[in-house]
Amino acid sequence: MGNDLNQKCGDVGGGELVVGLDAGGTRTRVVLAAADGRLLGEGAAGPGNALTVPMPQLIEHLAEAVAAAVPEEARGRVVSVAGGFAGATAASPDDPGHLNARSALTSALRRLGIPAGPVGICSDIEAAFAAAPGTPADGLALVAGTGAVAMRIADRRGTVTVDGDGWLLGDDGSGFWIGRTAVRAALRMADGRGPATALAASVGRALGLPGGVLPGDDEDDRGAGWTRPHREAYRMHLLPAVMADPPIRLARLAPLVAEAAREKDAVAEAILEEAADQLTETVRALNPHPGEPLVATGGLLGPDGPLTPLLAPRLAALGLTLDWVADGCRGAVALARLAHGGGSR
Amino acid sequence: MGNDLNQKCGDVGGGELVVGLDAGGTRTRVVLAAADGRLLGEGAAGPGNALTVPMPQLIEHLAEAVAAAVPEEARGRVVSVAGGFAGATAASPDDPGHLNARSALTSALRRLGIPAGPVGICSDIEAAFAAAPGTPADGLALVAGTGAVAMRIADRRGTVTVDGDGWLLGDDGSGFWIGRTAVRAALRMADGRGPATALAASVGRALGLPGGVLPGDDEDDRGAGWTRPHREAYRMHLLPAVMADPPIRLARLAPLVAEAAREKDAVAEAILEEAADQLTETVRALNPHPGEPLVATGGLLGPDGPLTPLLAPRLAALGLTLDWVADGCRGAVALARLAHGGGSR
Repeated sequence: MGNDLNQKCGDVGGGELVVGLDAGGTRTRVVLAAADGRLLGEGAAGPGNALTVPMPQLIEHLAEAVAAAVPEEARGRVVSVAGGFAGATAASPDDPGHLNARSALTSALRRLGIPAGPVGICSDIEAAFAAAPGTPADGLALVAGTGAVAMRIADRRGTVTVDGDGWLLGDDGSGFWIGRTAVRAALRMADGRGPATALAASVGRALGLPGGVLPGDDEDDRGAGWTRPHREAYRMHLLPAVMADPPIRLARLAPLVAEAAREKDAVAEAILEEAADQLTETVRALNPHPGEPLVATGGLLGPDGPLTPLLAPRLAALGLTLDWVADGCRGAVALARLAHGGGSR
Repeated sequence: MGNDLNQKCGDVGGGELVVGLDAGGTRTRVVLAAADGRLLGEGAAGPGNALTVPMPQLIEHLAEAVAAAVPEEARGRVVSVAGGFAGATAASPDDPGHLNARSALTSALRRLGIPAGPVGICSDIEAAFAAAPGTPADGLALVAGTGAVAMRIADRRGTVTVDGDGWLLGDDGSGFWIGRTAVRAALRMADGRGPATALAASVGRALGLPGGVLPGDDEDDRGAGWTRPHREAYRMHLLPAVMADPPIRLARLAPLVAEAAREKDAVAEAILEEAADQLTETVRALNPHPGEPLVATGGLLGPDGPLTPLLAPRLAALGLTLDWVADGCRGAVALARLAHGGGSR
């Protein structure tokens, strides 16, 4: 992968340059900026989780993304580099995630002939927090995408983490949680434990079940029209279809819940309400002060995110306003500029 | 494995013999009985799930367990064989689980020189149901061990299944569910979302966490005495400890919840109450008729099972009384006798 993801890479002027990375579980993004913060280039490559990507690939992905963002002739002018890494969330800078990230990024820069001094390493969450307008130093960060985690940030470092416990044990209210709950709702309708829901048909279609075992799409057929043998056949097809994929792939079903909720399916609406309650509980456990900054990232909370309209009033009741950022690249740039003595943008 | 599990194997008399198997996910048990139902021998070997154990091992395990139960000189007198298999729960006798079980059991008997005619194949749940006194033909079966599933039985065949959806999507109220919920409760105490519970210490000890990051065992230290850095360290040690094992291994933590509940830990008590509610909901979805037979199996519902005292009153409210059996071996023997024209015992 790589080049098709790499967009701007034009004139980079003649002054000092800074580089910011957001190394996530699915890809690594890099931004090149001028010392005053102006965006000059972007690059992307494969996954950059500092705990789960093996070191040779990690170095490779970081080098590929940085190379795409920083033209060869400009590399000598890079004065500061900072990166936010998934897998570097532990509070201590001596944890394996931090150490891997520092080692891999240093190697990648050396390979490209970039003479930056000590690199700045932080978690992807800290980078996202720093990406908010004004580069705040203290406040709260909330991630709600495939996973879910909240963090209190003090002096630009995470000090307290709530949830982020992974799909097996937590990530309550995440895309994975919503997707799994959708399949559970379909199965509970099928075996008579739960109410009728349009999710049974849409989840079944998404998982490639044969048409003969799907409940009808029309209103009348959702409940009583679905006979016992149909329900048993649905279960027997659905379970192996789910188990054939890694569990985390259930997150891809979250948009079906948003779609069904838009069409007023009561089960889907209740799933989104519960997800919003869980994320609110996660933020509340950080003991928020009314009015302090709350920076969010992740697809569930973006401008068109399915939880955005549900979470806003719940957070308002805690005196909080959500400020969303697409990723941590601009935050890493801000941290790189600060490390070089630059002001906040 | 094998011989240490194989107990009685003495004088087997001179008449016709029947064999019953319970082929489960962790081991295969076999019982040899006289035509009148008297127990004459027992054998055991490795796993016998008809869907997940590869065919050569499945044949091997079945042959080993049958060989241990049936002395060589008696094999010519076996007139009927029946087996209940995990993985053969689908309603159709043409499903892969049924076909594998029939093929493997036929091969194993041929290898041992046992001339039994067509073998009887059913699910482990149907065999457990038939193990109840009187060998009932119609009623309800409930399994609550590592997993959880309920089934309506008509004319000795399962007709409707509720739950049994596996650890990722269901098995609500099972040993896995209880174990996972215990770890969740510990993590939620650690990050401030949940109340203090003795489970944090017992789960941490069971997962081999270093003493320094465990909450104190004394009453005062359960909540406020556990400082923020302690809580963060606990989380950072607990998550990799859980993820190092297959998810299903969380079921081994269920006894810790029973133990904490006995000592009146409110969180542990609530977990068991919720598990009992879920199993009740699972049974209720079968539309039970007051007074019909309900046969249960699985460690959670045995004579000393942690859910037995909680489930009994809930089922009584539905007009049901729980009859527990240790496994399906005696049920398979009863089905083998019926297939040979024998009466119920």
